[in-house]
Amino acid sequence: SIERERFVETMREQAEIGATEGGGLHRLALSDEDKAIRDWFAEQLAALDLSIRIDEFGNMFGRRDGTDPDADPVLVGSHLDSQPYGGIYDGALGVVAPLELLRTLEDEGIETRRPIEIVNWTNEEGSRFQPAMQGSGVWTNELDLETQYERTDEDGNSVREELERIGYLGDVPAEPRDYEAYFELHIEQGPYLELEGVDVGVVTGVVGFYWGATTFTGEADHSGPTPMHDRSDALVAAADVITGIRRIPGSLGDRTVGTVGYLDVDPNSINIIPGEVTFTWGFRDPSDEIVDEAKARALAEIEAAAEREGVEWEVEKRMRSASVDFADRCIDAVQTSADDLGYDSMQLYSGAGHDAAHLSKVTDTSMVFAVSENGKSHSEEEFTSWDDCYAAANTLANAVVRVAGL
Amino acid sequence: SIERERFVETMREQAEIGATEGGGLHRLALSDEDKAIRDWFAEQLAALDLSIRIDEFGNMFGRRDGTDPDADPVLVGSHLDSQPYGGIYDGALGVVAPLELLRTLEDEGIETRRPIEIVNWTNEEGSRFQPAMQGSGVWTNELDLETQYERTDEDGNSVREELERIGYLGDVPAEPRDYEAYFELHIEQGPYLELEGVDVGVVTGVVGFYWGATTFTGEADHSGPTPMHDRSDALVAAADVITGIRRIPGSLGDRTVGTVGYLDVDPNSINIIPGEVTFTWGFRDPSDEIVDEAKARALAEIEAAAEREGVEWEVEKRMRSASVDFADRCIDAVQTSADDLGYDSMQLYSGAGHDAAHLSKVTDTSMVFAVSENGKSHSEEEFTSWDDCYAAANTLANAVVRVAGL
Ligand SMILES: NC(=O)NCCC(=O)O
Ligand SMILES: NC(=O)NCCC(=O)O
Repeated sequence: SIERERFVETMREQAEIGATEGGGLHRLALSDEDKAIRDWFAEQLAALDLSIRIDEFGNMFGRRDGTDPDADPVLVGSHLDSQPYGGIYDGALGVVAPLELLRTLEDEGIETRRPIEIVNWTNEEGSRFQPAMQGSGVWTNELDLETQYERTDEDGNSVREELERIGYLGDVPAEPRDYEAYFELHIEQGPYLELEGVDVGVVTGVVGFYWGATTFTGEADHSGPTPMHDRSDALVAAADVITGIRRIPGSLGDRTVGTVGYLDVDPNSINIIPGEVTFTWGFRDPSDEIVDEAKARALAEIEAAAEREGVEWEVEKRMRSASVDFADRCIDAVQTSADDLGYDSMQLYSGAGHDAAHLSKVTDTSMVFAVSENGKSHSEEEFTSWDDCYAAANTLANAVVRVAGL
Repeated sequence: SIERERFVETMREQAEIGATEGGGLHRLALSDEDKAIRDWFAEQLAALDLSIRIDEFGNMFGRRDGTDPDADPVLVGSHLDSQPYGGIYDGALGVVAPLELLRTLEDEGIETRRPIEIVNWTNEEGSRFQPAMQGSGVWTNELDLETQYERTDEDGNSVREELERIGYLGDVPAEPRDYEAYFELHIEQGPYLELEGVDVGVVTGVVGFYWGATTFTGEADHSGPTPMHDRSDALVAAADVITGIRRIPGSLGDRTVGTVGYLDVDPNSINIIPGEVTFTWGFRDPSDEIVDEAKARALAEIEAAAEREGVEWEVEKRMRSASVDFADRCIDAVQTSADDLGYDSMQLYSGAGHDAAHLSKVTDTSMVFAVSENGKSHSEEEFTSWDDCYAAANTLANAVVRVAGL
């Protein structure tokens, strides 16, 4: 077991950097706050005498050598950036826990056969620069380095400029190396662990996603003298689809979700019939067939709504990410660790995307989930008790050591 | 009949001030363009030797004396301000037509018994400063002068400052005087005249309005791991109401309209369940009972949707304007003029608000409508043929002279 008091203390310490008044974090990727937390993280690694690498996309690695010079290392980590008003656990818990593991190994003079590397991925959140999971996406070659360098925030600052500005444009190539496995601890961000009353989650994979955007173009017109039968109201068509998307998951699977998160109305005036509406929609499910079926039903809703309301429609694909199944041996390592430590656990798919989904393309991977109270995240209300943080951190530590070998 | 060529020429002339590339107007109330059109209008009045009054709210009056010094004048006019990208007819046609009447009377040396006054009301459109029909509202004491002075545009400039800046803060009190009648010519902004194939509209009143705003507050949460049955999605609740509002008018009356024109989502992010949505809604009908019934049904939809989705709701009243019936003698004056001139006409309610609705509170009033092609307005696509402009202008001129007496 890792040292509980220092672990909690370190969680509190990181939470001071970019702290919001509401008890959360405002630590957007490549901001001054991100620079501060990176500097803090580098100090912690230096204090452990780890060798540090910063790659050309700002991903930060710390390496603790193993006893076998030929053995591939075990990689473990998560991200230190946050949502604009996010919580203090999302990401940071998955960096602090392995840091505490490395400190404990050092304190106890324990050597592992394989090296252990700890990582802080650049821009997991995708709030300031899109897409989310950008650093791990570039590193696994799922995303193109040059394209991602040119992504800009809403003020026009590019990722490359901001990496340079904060001093984290490293020179190590951002590309996969040989690893034995990758482990990541993250808060669940959903309600299942709490509902089942378990201590930790053993993550078997990540749901597949489809994200689309639809634009309906009708006729902007005066809301007074234009009769109902003469209207092509883009917002009515959108509303029709939104209620449809609310219903689609119900007939597909109990893990299927469908959401319209973003909607923009033009001209958006109290007495003008909406002429153009753009909205995004997304579905997720552990089964890619269900995601595809949900998408097909949404397209049918879009066509039917457009026809009913007499508006033009256009659909743009924003993302398709296939469902990921983690490696059995890594899942088993996490499960066995939870069992050995006497934690109640359940196996589940992650409903959120994680750096681990990219990593699973290049090495065997699994994740540990910590209980999220009320399933809340991406909000200052995000909460995980220290007991639950600690149970998940210990499970992760044991799984890593199990695979790294003694 | 008024002089057609000069009338069309004058319509074209005014359309150059604040002209947009798309063939419309950008002549927001109290802007530099509004100053320019006011200066132009004042010149036209001066050229006719009319006595000019600017009141303390910038409403501009020009008076042509009658032969009977004790007779109350007939007032006629509309507005010269425009929507941000409005058409060249909305408002301006109702000022140029009586201007041309006064020129024709002058040319022909015709004297009327009653004085005729022409008016340009300040800020009819309500785009830059709310509410719409502000100048006539203040003048009729339907709106409070000091409150309206303090209204600001989105840059924080107040009405009073802007009136002063453009030199149209007059010293005549903005309050009703004794008038025999008020007439206003406006484009219909709806499709009825064109559908019936008539030349002009005889306006019998203005529909009643109810405008409300609703805020639904649910729970912003991550769109991935949050199960459908655990959601309180403010946008789904709003969508439910929007489709309801689309259906409500159908069972009430053939002139009933219901519209959701404005909608704002928070946090408005592709992977966050909408936590708060605010939207406006409005109903109009010639019958106030129908407006009230539509409002009651909308409230029932709001409550039901909130309950279904588990969100909190709040309704704010934005405006209630009772249906207006114009005076029979003024309606008759317009009808008889159209008939005498050999124009096909139909009687109808206005679906849009007009300065005439305020004026009807203080003097007998009616309006003439010109055909709107495709019912389009508040758009650069707004169009009325010169034939239709001319028919409406002549109808107005004859109604005014009829009441002013020879
Ligand atoms: N973990 C997480 O919030 N990832 C962001 C991408 C998503 O799942 O919507
Ligand atoms: N005529 C006109 O567009 N008035 C604005 C107020 C309204 O009717 O919505």
